Amino acid sequence: MTRGSFAERLDRVLGERKNCLCVGLDPDATKFPTALRGMEPGKALETFLEGIVEATRPVACAYKLQMASFLSFGPAGMALLPALVRRIGEGHLRILDLKAGDIPNTMSLYARAVFDQMGFDAMTVSPYLGWESVEAAATDPSKGVFVLAHTSNAGARDIQERSIDGNPLWESILQGIRDRSGPGNLGAVVGATFPEALGRARTLLGGNVPLLIPGVGSQGGDLGAAMRNGKGAGSGALLISSSRGILFASSGDDWKEAARAEAVRLSRGMALGPA
Amino acid sequence: MTRGSFAERLDRVLGERKNCLCVGLDPDATKFPTALRGMEPGKALETFLEGIVEATRPVACAYKLQMASFLSFGPAGMALLPALVRRIGEGHLRILDLKAGDIPNTMSLYARAVFDQMGFDAMTVSPYLGWESVEAAATDPSKGVFVLAHTSNAGARDIQERSIDGNPLWESILQGIRDRSGPGNLGAVVGATFPEALGRARTLLGGNVPLLIPGVGSQGGDLGAAMRNGKGAGSGALLISSSRGILFASSGDDWKEAARAEAVRLSRGMALGPA
Repeated sequence: MTRGSFAERLDRVLGERKNCLCVGLDPDATKFPTALRGMEPGKALETFLEGIVEATRPVACAYKLQMASFLSFGPAGMALLPALVRRIGEGHLRILDLKAGDIPNTMSLYARAVFDQMGFDAMTVSPYLGWESVEAAATDPSKGVFVLAHTSNAGARDIQERSIDGNPLWESILQGIRDRSGPGNLGAVVGATFPEALGRARTLLGGNVPLLIPGVGSQGGDLGAAMRNGKGAGSGALLISSSRGILFASSGDDWKEAARAEAVRLSRGMALGPA
Repeated sequence: MTRGSFAERLDRVLGERKNCLCVGLDPDATKFPTALRGMEPGKALETFLEGIVEATRPVACAYKLQMASFLSFGPAGMALLPALVRRIGEGHLRILDLKAGDIPNTMSLYARAVFDQMGFDAMTVSPYLGWESVEAAATDPSKGVFVLAHTSNAGARDIQERSIDGNPLWESILQGIRDRSGPGNLGAVVGATFPEALGRARTLLGGNVPLLIPGVGSQGGDLGAAMRNGKGAGSGALLISSSRGILFASSGDDWKEAARAEAVRLSRGMALGPA
């Protein structure tokens, strides 16, 4: 494990928490707790997310903030991104789910904005513009770059599963990730809704490359299969993300307690190593 | 041409201006005019972009705002996005270059934020998550969705040019765009740096599907070849984007005049129909 790398930091966090729960922060104002609905939207967003973070902090390893959700709250939502990164603090990994994929010049700009200015520890990127673009986002070994390989939606079949020289495109993406994983900052996104793809991904990547796994919960992925197929070496080298099940566990006055209870329940299914 | 569609509106704008210039707004604080360098960064950004828009408005058909650049200016940059959309006004097309590519649920959220809340007329999207994701962004026929097919960077070869059933992946993306182009709101992004790909794209798409063409200017694409190979039916059905050459034409006190002169010069090379 490269010293000071993102992979090393993930290994340490997983080893401390002994689970791999990543809480997805995909706020949706139409599902906010009843008690927050009279508030000004920016204030409601801040109150809601700070409440969710406080409630889930003891059990979560990471938080994945969904760019589209914050964007939909306008400038107040965007201003909350760096504030929430600080609020979560360095004891947890903070991932911006941006799926950025642009020319190298622009990817450098994304990296600067996301890592240096907003303070995130990792972000998601799309491989469609090729490896020079992934590499331009991944110049700092301490900052993680999770590259989309096989996503959790049904449409993953349209492009990602197309056959190239006898193998699906997404497998060649995994090979490209593995070939560049030396510095310890590249990982792969593979959805829990395709459990066989997940097992194949772990085999192709080897044990040490981090996997970020969305799609359990409301998208229908099986948690047990994701754990069996996705778990790697060391402390596990994986994060499994759940969003809506935790965030909207209750719309009543017990929303924080309900979010915490759901996070605790999920984390038990994500237990790593000796309890 | 579908009535009230994005393609119809593009056709009208191109017919009025008789050129296909799209000004790329990729602000970079390190290249701002000397006169703006003492200003607070958010104020400098606003002054700079309003100056560029005023200077180029008589000749430009569209403005393409690069998300990464605005993000790198923090909350002030993000707050400027909808303000600049209003400032540019409805006489020009306003495109957010976001290259969004996520699951359908999230793409709907992007569409709401970009089109309904910020007021853009179009955005760029990545096809890696499949057609259901593109379709989720393209439910409003009056709002354009430009899908990445063959991008302008060298890394386009890594994934986009991989062979699937004997044809490159990017060609199957174009076929998918054409198959869904009935409502008149889907277009394709094809870089000017691969002129043969551009000609092939126009053939595969037919004359009416809009092309958004980056890569002339500092990226090295040939403008004459882009015009010959990209021009379609009606008023032309294409936009050719130039950013840095216009934005940073001069860092002296003549920056607005220099930007306008460069936009006028480029627009002459992009002339459409009778003058």
